[in-house]
Amino acid sequence: MLYKDRTKSIEERVEDLLSKMTLKEKVGQLNQKMLGWNAYKIEEDQVILTKEFLEEVEFGDGVGAIYGLSRADGWNSHLTMGVNTKESVRIANKVQKYIIENTRLGIPILVVEECPHGHEAIESTTFPTNIGIGSSWNTDLYEKECHIIAKELRGRGGHLALISTLDIATDPRWGRTEECYGEDPYLSSKFCESAVRGIQGNGKEDLKKLDRAVVVLKHFCAQGATIGGHNGKATNIGQRELHEIHLLGMKKGVGAGALGCMAAYNDIDGIPCHINRKLLTNILRDEMGFEGIVMSDGCGVDRLLSITGSHIKAGADSLYAGVDLNLWNKAFLELEEAVNKGLLFEKDLDIAVKRVLSVKFKLGLFENPYVDEISAEYIVGSSEAKEVALKMAREVPVLLENKNDILPLKDSIKRIAVIGPNSDKIYNQLGDYTQWQTDEKVTTVLKGIKMHSPKTTEVLSATGCSIRSFDTSGFAEAIDIAEKADVIILVLGGSSTREPGMNFQDNGAIFMDKFTSEIDCGEAVDLADIKLGGVQVQLAKELKKLGKPIVTILIQGRPHAIPWLKENSDAILCGWYPGEKGGEAIGEIVFGKTVPSGKLSISMPSSVAQLPVYYNRKDLTDYIDMNAKPLYEFGYGLSYTTFNYENFSLNHNKLSVDAIKAGKRFEIDFDILNQGFFDAEEVVQLYIYDMESCITRRIKELKDFRKLSIPKNEKVRTNLSVGLEELSIYDYNMDFVLEPGNVRIMIGSSSDNIVYSHIVRIE
Amino acid sequence: MLYKDRTKSIEERVEDLLSKMTLKEKVGQLNQKMLGWNAYKIEEDQVILTKEFLEEVEFGDGVGAIYGLSRADGWNSHLTMGVNTKESVRIANKVQKYIIENTRLGIPILVVEECPHGHEAIESTTFPTNIGIGSSWNTDLYEKECHIIAKELRGRGGHLALISTLDIATDPRWGRTEECYGEDPYLSSKFCESAVRGIQGNGKEDLKKLDRAVVVLKHFCAQGATIGGHNGKATNIGQRELHEIHLLGMKKGVGAGALGCMAAYNDIDGIPCHINRKLLTNILRDEMGFEGIVMSDGCGVDRLLSITGSHIKAGADSLYAGVDLNLWNKAFLELEEAVNKGLLFEKDLDIAVKRVLSVKFKLGLFENPYVDEISAEYIVGSSEAKEVALKMAREVPVLLENKNDILPLKDSIKRIAVIGPNSDKIYNQLGDYTQWQTDEKVTTVLKGIKMHSPKTTEVLSATGCSIRSFDTSGFAEAIDIAEKADVIILVLGGSSTREPGMNFQDNGAIFMDKFTSEIDCGEAVDLADIKLGGVQVQLAKELKKLGKPIVTILIQGRPHAIPWLKENSDAILCGWYPGEKGGEAIGEIVFGKTVPSGKLSISMPSSVAQLPVYYNRKDLTDYIDMNAKPLYEFGYGLSYTTFNYENFSLNHNKLSVDAIKAGKRFEIDFDILNQGFFDAEEVVQLYIYDMESCITRRIKELKDFRKLSIPKNEKVRTNLSVGLEELSIYDYNMDFVLEPGNVRIMIGSSSDNIVYSHIVRIE
Repeated sequence: MLYKDRTKSIEERVEDLLSKMTLKEKVGQLNQKMLGWNAYKIEEDQVILTKEFLEEVEFGDGVGAIYGLSRADGWNSHLTMGVNTKESVRIANKVQKYIIENTRLGIPILVVEECPHGHEAIESTTFPTNIGIGSSWNTDLYEKECHIIAKELRGRGGHLALISTLDIATDPRWGRTEECYGEDPYLSSKFCESAVRGIQGNGKEDLKKLDRAVVVLKHFCAQGATIGGHNGKATNIGQRELHEIHLLGMKKGVGAGALGCMAAYNDIDGIPCHINRKLLTNILRDEMGFEGIVMSDGCGVDRLLSITGSHIKAGADSLYAGVDLNLWNKAFLELEEAVNKGLLFEKDLDIAVKRVLSVKFKLGLFENPYVDEISAEYIVGSSEAKEVALKMAREVPVLLENKNDILPLKDSIKRIAVIGPNSDKIYNQLGDYTQWQTDEKVTTVLKGIKMHSPKTTEVLSATGCSIRSFDTSGFAEAIDIAEKADVIILVLGGSSTREPGMNFQDNGAIFMDKFTSEIDCGEAVDLADIKLGGVQVQLAKELKKLGKPIVTILIQGRPHAIPWLKENSDAILCGWYPGEKGGEAIGEIVFGKTVPSGKLSISMPSSVAQLPVYYNRKDLTDYIDMNAKPLYEFGYGLSYTTFNYENFSLNHNKLSVDAIKAGKRFEIDFDILNQGFFDAEEVVQLYIYDMESCITRRIKELKDFRKLSIPKNEKVRTNLSVGLEELSIYDYNMDFVLEPGNVRIMIGSSSDNIVYSHIVRIE
Repeated sequence: MLYKDRTKSIEERVEDLLSKMTLKEKVGQLNQKMLGWNAYKIEEDQVILTKEFLEEVEFGDGVGAIYGLSRADGWNSHLTMGVNTKESVRIANKVQKYIIENTRLGIPILVVEECPHGHEAIESTTFPTNIGIGSSWNTDLYEKECHIIAKELRGRGGHLALISTLDIATDPRWGRTEECYGEDPYLSSKFCESAVRGIQGNGKEDLKKLDRAVVVLKHFCAQGATIGGHNGKATNIGQRELHEIHLLGMKKGVGAGALGCMAAYNDIDGIPCHINRKLLTNILRDEMGFEGIVMSDGCGVDRLLSITGSHIKAGADSLYAGVDLNLWNKAFLELEEAVNKGLLFEKDLDIAVKRVLSVKFKLGLFENPYVDEISAEYIVGSSEAKEVALKMAREVPVLLENKNDILPLKDSIKRIAVIGPNSDKIYNQLGDYTQWQTDEKVTTVLKGIKMHSPKTTEVLSATGCSIRSFDTSGFAEAIDIAEKADVIILVLGGSSTREPGMNFQDNGAIFMDKFTSEIDCGEAVDLADIKLGGVQVQLAKELKKLGKPIVTILIQGRPHAIPWLKENSDAILCGWYPGEKGGEAIGEIVFGKTVPSGKLSISMPSSVAQLPVYYNRKDLTDYIDMNAKPLYEFGYGLSYTTFNYENFSLNHNKLSVDAIKAGKRFEIDFDILNQGFFDAEEVVQLYIYDMESCITRRIKELKDFRKLSIPKNEKVRTNLSVGLEELSIYDYNMDFVLEPGNVRIMIGSSSDNIVYSHIVRIE
């Protein structure tokens, strides 16, 4: 059998295998209908495959993929509290073995898992969520993190890592803002590249190694642009907005070799992504050159009934548009009938099947379908993984205020009161899509502060209030310990915590009901007002009356509007959802063992009334009752030291279009001097404003950045530049071209703190 | 000279005239550079033409048009308090005579005037602003109103009436929301048709009559979709959103014969309207069949410098795109040079010149360039005009609450306290673009209440507070009179009042500075938060403590968020800016002499955090902290009576595509029974939901309506229907087609009060 011959090319093997397949088998390969945790039971330490799974295999005499064999969170808590690493391996192997040995062609199955900030499986490492990753501006470290995620995933038998990498946060009311790297397409696309390289490695050979997996980039496309921040609903954006803001991540991901992406729930100007052939085929494949598979979002095809009128037409339309692999849709079960009824050509279906088979060959699954229990236990939750989780957690927090250098706290402080709903709740700092954890695995802020406080400092603690309830009964205890303390550390924010008892939608998103009183963020958890929930600010006001210094730490998945806290806190540190090592990193920062280096990758509004406030807008006109500027701007973040930018040198005042096309770039060299008393990191940022163009341009656009380590009192010379791609625009006709004209190039430590500005000319 | 021969066709006359023109003269005809009030001085009762005007004529040996000869408001208050009707006529005639007698070809000039809610000139009649017109749902009466406007305009020598008719209000933060008929494209397009018919008459012959003028529909296009409600800035909408929501008004306006429109300041997905050839030529002329002139918005071409790099290129690009007639731009002064430099073909410029000349011939200006003083004084501010202003003002107010039928007030009431910043300020009820008024001309709410209250009722009054200041020093007086009264009438809201001392932008919009503390609405007056300004709600809370009934009357140009007032007022009447007769109409309503019949043409949000809340969205998902539904929905409004809808009869359960194309319609007949004690009017509304389509559809779309007068205890049978145009959609490929599938047809008294719902099938 040629397709089993590993010396043949993947193309040949795919063609051979396809030629042997029946229509039923082909449809089977496009299928991923069931929830993985329903595929097995564990009885007396033995994995038993369920009838549901056997039927799934029977349906197509083989299965394309299975979702969430290891997923373990509130959604499936009624079945199990999850399977540990060893069990995962046994399950994955058992599933794989059954498929290979009990189907005519023995095509291995793809195991698909959620990995938005670590593999969502028991014992796997939980990293900061993406909105915090964005604040790190550290794409190299993120690539390492993603490599760890790939190891932990593949090690226990998974193959496809689902990661939100494409969504651009334009409205913080959206509960999935936490899954976005931020509001900027350029910065986000850099993280997207890192995710692809980290998960998949470099070059296709890496994929066969057991420390790599295939990444499925989510969500294609423009899910962050839905009207009103309503999750997964309508957008009304145009093609230019789509291209300028929402497509860049995928373009870069494809460039880095991504082999998977997921269609988004939303529509774009009336066309749902799942049936948008222009998007999924013309743009994605013809223009970008994507060669991987497009997975539907969970039930995303079945949701099209109001458009297609039937499941069978929904499936056919969606496959024709470019969706290759099912996720839970009934619609894809009817593809065979769709072909038979003439709603779909078999040749179109064949294209999708080839893509699925190709990924299986690329992963080497025909040769090495199984994983090893012992290795897995060594890999999952390794000290290397913990180390990277801690390193990343150190880079995430953004220091927003630090009046009179109150931070780092002095060793002389006798008593600290750590107060607030997010001070000591493990899940509250981990974000949505988080597996069950043990208390020992996660360092909360309180624990981290205790860990790093001087021995002579006493740490008192109280919860004070909850995230959203209006119960003030905890105030008294909080005030009581605050009165005894020299400094108050107030840990406020939001929560994406799933708890037992919650109900879920058919795609695993939370169903908001009476059991959800404490959650205010995550999938399908959209807020109208973005002030802090419940009585959190009221608690802060009570504590303020004591006249003690207040250090506010925000643990949250979206920017909240915090004008009062800005005025009244001595320091504010925004830690986002910092992951399992988050408390440790924050403890280090509070006591000066780590210097904060995060910068906002999303603007923090003064109020919901200002929205939208993303920095890369086309104008900045104030309202009569409020500034247009946010409270804290994109790219902003303080350090424990100060940096001076000096000795700027620009290599060209003008360049011809041809020269730029030939590779010339405008380069700016400059020095950064660390003027303070801490070794520290600085993120230097390059923005442009295109002053002459056939279309309206944004007042600032990030086009280069660098995160630099600079020892205290030392100077580092660095370089930022722009060339053909950064200077090109989608013109009047939507062609991506470099136009002649003036461009202002700006260097800054944030989007609103520009320290160098020069107009160059493209001729 | 053939072009002077009135027996020849306009086409022939235009061709002949054009063939005789030099390039300089052609450019002159595209010109409208100066502000009309700078064209003359009045000295000792004589009109003297200024040097600036003579130079303007000299520039092109003739002038296309002159803006605002009669305009008289804060913008030009440093020059004059305006010219009266007689003076207007003299000025217009003098200007016209000079042009005709002192240029080689003697081509008459077009006199262009603002007429957003009446001609903005001293003594002309001031009607409700458009957001109130929308609430009237009375398109016939509006057509009459527009005929009056045309009479008053033409009567004093004006020819082109600038009226906002195209903007769709999608974000109430926008200060020009007051100029929109509302949020719905269908309803707005009906008013747009009425405006065209009212101003221009029916058929082109009407234009030569001295009671008609040419309408310039503003603004083309999508100005109501700017991001964040920022005036005149960027939109990021797609082509389908543009077609479904923003183009319909123009399409209908063109159908009704409109001969003018104005390009909008905003861009659409990156392309400014002023250089958008697809919009101004392909869509407007090729698809819609528009044959009139496109005027630039004031300085709208010069604003393109950041795109074009120079005035000369801005002018050339803009003219090529489809802008025919200048408004204050330097860019259009360089068109001759643009042709000479090869930036523009003279044949493209000729097309624009022909359009301008054609309008002049259509208006009969070559035969009858002058107007008559005596007639003008008879026409302007006539009793007929006042009557229509009063009739319209009666139809505008929307009764939002009326607990225990507190309204109309009983005759037995001894004392009424009329309190609030909008109770007795004439300009506050007239909106932006209002000329100077005399106190006698305008009936305020206080005056109207005094006028209509029973003789035995005493009316006390106090201002209480202002619109935006935080001064509470007026509370004491307000509370004092409230304590003495049986009922409190609280007149709150916003203001678009221009006052002497204010500063203005180059296009006449207000420049917000320290002199603008009381204005919160109008052009360039955008709000972030849409709660009522200043201490208005605080005043209401103080008055509430007295335990007396409170009737709240809102005088405003945008929906404010009024959740507290909803809960705490006994009645709420939203009067918008009801025009010079507004107080009289409101007085009638308060005392039951007129029954309120307005229904909201724009959703009133609970809070800015909900935005957008327009009813014709594609989903209605609640936020976790707030409903998605507005406080009061589109189409909502109470009466003093109640109506029962009954005996529904649908003519077809299904129709073929061909039958519908042949003119068949789904028609629903039903009875409306007036069950109460007042003769009253009801607006019956038909909505559809397209349940099967190639694209995502809106949950409700208004497709027919009717305003009916129904005597008390009587029943009226009526009919609403939908056919080819209402059921067609812009499909996947943006073709406007009728698709087979199910459609839900709904009849309601508002968008949220559906009393009949039936699914019909298109086969």
